[in-house]
Amino acid sequence: MKKRTKRIKHIEVGGNMTVDELVQEFGKSGVFCAGRIAEATDIVYEMVSRRDVTTYLGLAGALVPGGMRRIITDLIRDRLIDVLVTTGANMVHDMIEAFGASHYKGNAMVDDAELHKLQIDRIYDVFLHEKDFCMYDDRFIKLLEGLPSKRMSIREFLYEMGKRIDDPNSILRAAADRKLPIFCPAIADSAIGLDVWRFKTKHNPDLCVDAFADLNDFMEIVRKAKRNGAILLGGGVPKNFILQAMIVVKRGGYDYAVQITMDRPEPGGLSGATLEEAKSWGKVGGRARAVQVIGDASLIFPLVVAAVRERLAKSKLGR
Amino acid sequence: MKKRTKRIKHIEVGGNMTVDELVQEFGKSGVFCAGRIAEATDIVYEMVSRRDVTTYLGLAGALVPGGMRRIITDLIRDRLIDVLVTTGANMVHDMIEAFGASHYKGNAMVDDAELHKLQIDRIYDVFLHEKDFCMYDDRFIKLLEGLPSKRMSIREFLYEMGKRIDDPNSILRAAADRKLPIFCPAIADSAIGLDVWRFKTKHNPDLCVDAFADLNDFMEIVRKAKRNGAILLGGGVPKNFILQAMIVVKRGGYDYAVQITMDRPEPGGLSGATLEEAKSWGKVGGRARAVQVIGDASLIFPLVVAAVRERLAKSKLGR
Amino acid sequence: MKKRTKRIKHIEVGGNMTVDELVQEFGKSGVFCAGRIAEATDIVYEMVSRRDVTTYLGLAGALVPGGMRRIITDLIRDRLIDVLVTTGANMVHDMIEAFGASHYKGNAMVDDAELHKLQIDRIYDVFLHEKDFCMYDDRFIKLLEGLPSKRMSIREFLYEMGKRIDDPNSILRAAADRKLPIFCPAIADSAIGLDVWRFKTKHNPDLCVDAFADLNDFMEIVRKAKRNGAILLGGGVPKNFILQAMIVVKRGGYDYAVQITMDRPEPGGLSGATLEEAKSWGKVGGRARAVQVIGDASLIFPLVVAAVRERLAKSKLGR
Amino acid sequence: MKKRTKRIKHIEVGGNMTVDELVQEFGKSGVFCAGRIAEATDIVYEMVSRRDVTTYLGLAGALVPGGMRRIITDLIRDRLIDVLVTTGANMVHDMIEAFGASHYKGNAMVDDAELHKLQIDRIYDVFLHEKDFCMYDDRFIKLLEGLPSKRMSIREFLYEMGKRIDDPNSILRAAADRKLPIFCPAIADSAIGLDVWRFKTKHNPDLCVDAFADLNDFMEIVRKAKRNGAILLGGGVPKNFILQAMIVVKRGGYDYAVQITMDRPEPGGLSGATLEEAKSWGKVGGRARAVQVIGDASLIFPLVVAAVRERLAKSKLGR
Repeated sequence: MKKRTKRIKHIEVGGNMTVDELVQEFGKSGVFCAGRIAEATDIVYEMVSRRDVTTYLGLAGALVPGGMRRIITDLIRDRLIDVLVTTGANMVHDMIEAFGASHYKGNAMVDDAELHKLQIDRIYDVFLHEKDFCMYDDRFIKLLEGLPSKRMSIREFLYEMGKRIDDPNSILRAAADRKLPIFCPAIADSAIGLDVWRFKTKHNPDLCVDAFADLNDFMEIVRKAKRNGAILLGGGVPKNFILQAMIVVKRGGYDYAVQITMDRPEPGGLSGATLEEAKSWGKVGGRARAVQVIGDASLIFPLVVAAVRERLAKSKLGR
Repeated sequence: MKKRTKRIKHIEVGGNMTVDELVQEFGKSGVFCAGRIAEATDIVYEMVSRRDVTTYLGLAGALVPGGMRRIITDLIRDRLIDVLVTTGANMVHDMIEAFGASHYKGNAMVDDAELHKLQIDRIYDVFLHEKDFCMYDDRFIKLLEGLPSKRMSIREFLYEMGKRIDDPNSILRAAADRKLPIFCPAIADSAIGLDVWRFKTKHNPDLCVDAFADLNDFMEIVRKAKRNGAILLGGGVPKNFILQAMIVVKRGGYDYAVQITMDRPEPGGLSGATLEEAKSWGKVGGRARAVQVIGDASLIFPLVVAAVRERLAKSKLGR
Repeated sequence: MKKRTKRIKHIEVGGNMTVDELVQEFGKSGVFCAGRIAEATDIVYEMVSRRDVTTYLGLAGALVPGGMRRIITDLIRDRLIDVLVTTGANMVHDMIEAFGASHYKGNAMVDDAELHKLQIDRIYDVFLHEKDFCMYDDRFIKLLEGLPSKRMSIREFLYEMGKRIDDPNSILRAAADRKLPIFCPAIADSAIGLDVWRFKTKHNPDLCVDAFADLNDFMEIVRKAKRNGAILLGGGVPKNFILQAMIVVKRGGYDYAVQITMDRPEPGGLSGATLEEAKSWGKVGGRARAVQVIGDASLIFPLVVAAVRERLAKSKLGR
Repeated sequence: MKKRTKRIKHIEVGGNMTVDELVQEFGKSGVFCAGRIAEATDIVYEMVSRRDVTTYLGLAGALVPGGMRRIITDLIRDRLIDVLVTTGANMVHDMIEAFGASHYKGNAMVDDAELHKLQIDRIYDVFLHEKDFCMYDDRFIKLLEGLPSKRMSIREFLYEMGKRIDDPNSILRAAADRKLPIFCPAIADSAIGLDVWRFKTKHNPDLCVDAFADLNDFMEIVRKAKRNGAILLGGGVPKNFILQAMIVVKRGGYDYAVQITMDRPEPGGLSGATLEEAKSWGKVGGRARAVQVIGDASLIFPLVVAAVRERLAKSKLGR
C-alpha cells in the first residue's frame, strides 16, 4: 500500500498564475478530477513531445459548434497530432463555418417547437440558422461536382473536400495541407451522407465510397508507429474505431490514452467504459499511461492543451 | 397553468401485481422517472398497436451482451417493430451467440491487465472469452466466402448474413426471416468491419459495400410511412441516423419518440440531447408524443415491453 | 475466474408477467442495471423476511412529492422496516398532504420566474401551491403550541408531531402508531426548522431540541440488533447517519445494504460513493450482501418493493 | 431571438496564458461548460469585488480531503467570503490536518475489505489512516473538555473549537480569527457528532447544542445584507440551508448564485436541482445573475478562484 500513496498537498491559488501553474497545483493534490487533469496533461505532453509517438485524436460530440474548432485546427497545423477520427457532424459544422456562416450562443431553456418555426436548429445552448444549413448543402454539392470519378475511401473523399476549402481555419483544410489523414467511419450518418446520397441519386449513381476501405490505411499507421497514443474527446464511433485497431494489429495496446467524457460506465456502453476495461481487450496496454477525466471536453480539452503548449514553449526556450 | 397540472396520487404496491399494473401505478403519480416510464409505455403501445405506424428501433450500447437479445428477436418475430438500426457490435455479439458461444456474468471491480492474461474481454460486468471471439472470426469469414460477388449496400450485406445463420434466436436471422431491414451505418467500426477488411485483403479485393447506398432505402421507408415512431435505446449513430432522415424527407418529424439513455444533455452531444431539442430541427414533430427516460435500458426496456405486451394480450382477448 | 462467472441467459418477456417474474428474468441475465435490481430484491427480501434483521430505511431526495409516500407508510404499517432516517423536507411534504393539500404533476421546462409570480413552487416536474405551504405553516405552528415543555431529542419531537396527525396515510402518523423511531439529523435544514425557529422566537424561547441527543438512541438500536440491514434511497445525511453508527458500535458493519442513487462516485461525495468504499471504513461488512443500483428511486424502489411483497405473499401461502 | 444570440468565436489557446486569459477565451465561445465557467467567474468576481454583497460559501462533498482546504482558508483570511455553511465532515477533516495528520493519494480500484484490514479509510481515491482518525478523536475530546458550560448554538460551538486550534491553515481557525460565522446544520451527522455524543455520555450530560438556535443568526445576516450572493460547492444540506433563508426573509431571493455540481436534476433531489427551479420558490431572484456549472468542484472551483483573484490583483494595480 505504501508505494501507491503520497501525501496530499492542498491546492494554492494566487492572483497571477499561468494555466500550467494551476495544473501543477492540481498535481500536488493529485486526487479527484483535479488530479486526473494533472495526469492527463503529463500524458498528452509526453505524447506530443516524444518523436516516436503517433497521436490519434478522436472527436465525438458537438465540439465544433461548441467553440473547439480552432484548437483542433491549430493542433493539426503545428503537427501535434497525427491522425484524426471524427463523427461526420463535426466535419459538417467545420464546413458551415468555412463557407462563411456562424454558430450562435443560444439558450437551452426554450420552446423548441417555437424555434422550429423560426428555423433555428438547437444543439444544447448553441443555435444555428436553418438557412445557413441550406447554404452549406448548396456549397457542398458544388464541391461534389468537382470530384474525380473513381472509387474512393472515406479518407480520400475527405481529403478531396479539404483541398477544395479556402478557409485556413478549417479542420478539413488544415488536414489536407498537412496531409494528415481524417477517418470518419460513420460518414453516412451526417449531413455529408445525406448530401452525397442526394448527389448520387440525381447526378452520379456510380460514385462509390467504400465503407471498409479505410481500415487498411488505419492499420498500416498503427502498425508502423513505434508508440501509439490516443486522445479521445467523448466516446462514440471515434473511440471504438481508434481502439479496435489494436485487436487486429496486436501491438500490445495503446501506450498512452486519455479520454474526456461525461458518460457513465455502469450501463455498459463503450462511450462511458473505463480505459481499464480497454486493457482487458488489449486495446490499451497493461502498462500504458492512461487516464479518464470525467468532465466536459469544452472545458477540459482547452485547459489541457494550454498547459501542454506552455510546457512545449518553455522546453523550446532551452528548458 | 391549470390545464397542465393534475393531482399526484401516491404509488401503491401490493403482493400480487402484474408488470402493467405497476406501470399504471407509476402513471398515477406521473412524475420523475416513474411517470416517464408510464408515458413511454403508453407511447410504445400506441406505436405497436396502430397499423399505420412504422416503428424504428435504434440499438446503441452493449444490449446483446447485456441479455437483451431475445427481447429484440421476439419483437422482430412478432412484427412489433419494422426497422432496426444498430451498432455493428450488437450484430457481432448476436453472431457470437448464434455460433454457439456465450457471454458470462463477471465483475466490474477486477484487475483488467490480469483479465487480459486470462484472455477474457470485459464489457462492464460481462465477461467474454477471447477464444469465443476467435471462433466467431473463423465462422464469419466462412460466411463471407459464400457471399454473392456484387456491389452491396450494408443492409443487403446484413440480410445475406442473416440468411446464413441457423440459430432461430438470432436477431440477424429473425430479421432475414421477416424481411425486416437492418441498417448499420458504422459497420466498419466493429469486428464485422475488421473481418471484412481481412477478407478483402486476402481473398476478394473487389468486394465493395457502399457507405452511402442505404440512405435511399431508409428514406423510402420513412417517406412511405403514414406515421413514424422511433424507439431509441441509447444514442450514438442509431439515434442520429433514425432522426436525421426527417430533415430530408420533411414529413414534419417523428410522430412518436421514446429514448432510454443515461447520457446528460449539458455537454452538447447528440446521445444525451433531449427529444425537445430534436423538435427544433424538425426531427421530432412539434406535436409528437415523445418522452425521454433517464435510466439503464437493461432495466427499462424489458419493463416497458412487458407492460406493452400485457396490454396487447388483453386487447386481443377482447378486454 | 471460473467460480465468479455464470452464463448469461437472455431476458424473456411475455404478455402476462407478475413483477417478480420480470425481476427473476433480470436475475437470469444478472448484469448491468437489471442484474442489480434482481440482486437488490434478493437482499431486501432476506432483510425483511428474517426475524433477526433490524432494517433501516434512509430517505433523501423528493420522495414524498414524487409519489412514494404511501409505499413508505405501508412498509411502516406492515412492520417491514424498523427505523426511518430522513431529510426534514420529506416530513414537511408528508404533513402538507396530511393537512389536506396535494402535490401536482407539472413540467420541468417552464419559466420559473413566471411560476414564482403564480405562487407555484417547483420540484423538477412536481408543482406545489405556495398557499398550501402557508396553510402547512399555520397548521404546524398550531401543533407546536400543544407540545409538552421539555428538552427533547429530534426523534421525540417527531414522535410528538406524529401523534397529533390524523391522516392514517401519513408517514409520521404511521410511525407514531407503530412506535417506529424517525431520525432527522438535519431537521433545522427544512421548513420544520424554519417554523420551530419562528415559534421559539415569538412564543417559547426555552424550547430546546438537542442536536446530539438522538445518537444515543440510534446507537442502542444498532448495538442490540442481531443483524443490521440498510436500504438507502439517495444519499445525503440519511446515508451517512445510518452508516456512521458502525464506526462507533463496531458491529463489523451492516450485514445487508442496498443503495439506489443517480449520483456518481468520481467527485468524491458520500452520496455517490460505492458501498465497496463503505467497506474500507467498516460501515458495511466485508462479507455483507450489498448492492448499489444506479437509477431513479421513484422507479426502482416501487419495483423492488412489489417483487419483495410478491415473495412474501407466496411464502405465507405455504410455498 | 436576436437579443439572446451572439456569434460563437472559437477558443484559441497559446503557450503563455494566464488562467483568466483562458477563462476569457471560454467567454468568447460562451457555450457548453466552458461558457458557464466564464459566466461563473464574472458572477463570483462581481460578488467579491462589490462592497455591498454578503457572500455565502456552501461546502458539501469531500472538499477538504480532496485538496481544497487551503483555498477555502485563504478566501476567509482575505475576507472574500462572509459566511460558511458546511457539512460536519469537512470540519472533521480540517481538524485531522490541524492536529498534524494528512490525507493520502490512493486509488479507487482496490479491494476495500483488504483496505479495512490495513486500517485505511477510502474516500474515492483518497486514503486516510484509521490511526489518524483515532488521534483526531482524542484531540477533539480534549478540546471539548475546555468548553464553557452553557447552552450553545452550533455556530458558537464551532467558534469555540476554532479558537482552540493552532494551525493557521485551518478553516475553523481562520474563521475564528476573522469572526466569520460557520453554520453546520447537520453537525450530528459527522465524527463531531459522534465525539460530542461520547463526551456527553461519559462526562457532561448537560452539554446542550440547540439544533434550531442558529437560524436566528443566519436570518439576521441575510436580512441585513444589501445584496446576497451564494457560491454552492455541491448540494446537500449547505445548499438547502443557504437557499431556504430567502423563503423566510423575503428579500426577493439571492442576487447572485453559482453552483458547481455533478448531480442531475431529473431524479428530483435538491442537490441536482437547477438554480432556475430555485427561482420558482423565490430562493434565487428572478433577475439574479445565476449559473450552474456541471462538473467536479475540485477542478472548477480552483479555476474560478484563480481567475477571480487575477482580476482582483489587476484591479488593485490601478486598472
